[in-house]
Amino acid sequence: MRASEVVFRPIGIVHSRHREAAKTPIQPCYAADCEGTVEVFPEYAAGLQDIEGYSHIYLLYYLHQAPAASLLVKPFLQDVERGLFATRASCRPNPLGMSIVRLLGREGNILRISGVDILDGTPLLDIKPYAARFDCIPDTRNGWQDEVSEEDARKRGRRDFDKERIKDDGETS
Amino acid sequence: MRASEVVFRPIGIVHSRHREAAKTPIQPCYAADCEGTVEVFPEYAAGLQDIEGYSHIYLLYYLHQAPAASLLVKPFLQDVERGLFATRASCRPNPLGMSIVRLLGREGNILRISGVDILDGTPLLDIKPYAARFDCIPDTRNGWQDEVSEEDARKRGRRDFDKERIKDDGETS
Repeated sequence: MRASEVVFRPIGIVHSRHREAAKTPIQPCYAADCEGTVEVFPEYAAGLQDIEGYSHIYLLYYLHQAPAASLLVKPFLQDVERGLFATRASCRPNPLGMSIVRLLGREGNILRISGVDILDGTPLLDIKPYAARFDCIPDTRNGWQDEVSEEDARKRGRRDFDKERIKDDGETS
Repeated sequence: MRASEVVFRPIGIVHSRHREAAKTPIQPCYAADCEGTVEVFPEYAAGLQDIEGYSHIYLLYYLHQAPAASLLVKPFLQDVERGLFATRASCRPNPLGMSIVRLLGREGNILRISGVDILDGTPLLDIKPYAARFDCIPDTRNGWQDEVSEEDARKRGRRDFDKERIKDDGETS
């Protein structure tokens, strides 16, 4: 039997310097120097107690600017068409984003984070603590990603973010 | 500005032997011997291409039997009240579940998995590949969980699953 629709309501908003998907790093590990904040709506702030003990957290969010779903996609890290569920591409049947970001600190209902690969204004659905005991699995087979070198992954994973930074920092407009 | 509701539609169903929340292990690492299947609805099956190259996948699902949301909760691993977002408890404002399971194989639209800590009949929302490059972060601070010993975590994490198995295997009814 098929369940019907699932309705979620945002619990907060992610604020970042990323305004354009095409210039946003594709994963937190390619965005270590990108800081941002998570604004948790005040009515949920009590749930943040104890979170500052964690160095990393999962953010689960609505990919509000994702393109229409597509079941086959060329991932950012490789020019080969792959099944969508073997990628982290945003064109998913349910545009649900997930990032493991570093938690730098908390002031009330605001979390300061780094490793931000998330567009500014993204609606936040959930926060879960990253626990190495549950989540760090070192000996995995990583599908087509095992064919991509670290160097290539880093270059492609940052997308146009470096260029943008150089422009921001170095150009006179 | 607050975004409005986010509506997702299940892309499949998780099948497991877990029929009761109270007897379901709390995390895949405490359920290594629990096998199950993921039935992806046929219209999404094309998106599973290449997934068998991964040894582990994230399942994101609707915690359809979760209790009402509560912002403070005693986690299964410790008898101390904690902020909800510093735990993986199911009583979340948006009951969104996440498990990293081992992928044993695929036959068409059916994935065979182990490490299943998910109730039978759970509506599936998304599948993402687990990539050590993105997801395995060994040197983390793990909040209150760092106070819980491995032995204690294992005992509490399996909940009543062991007892149930002993009853299933050993008792004459």
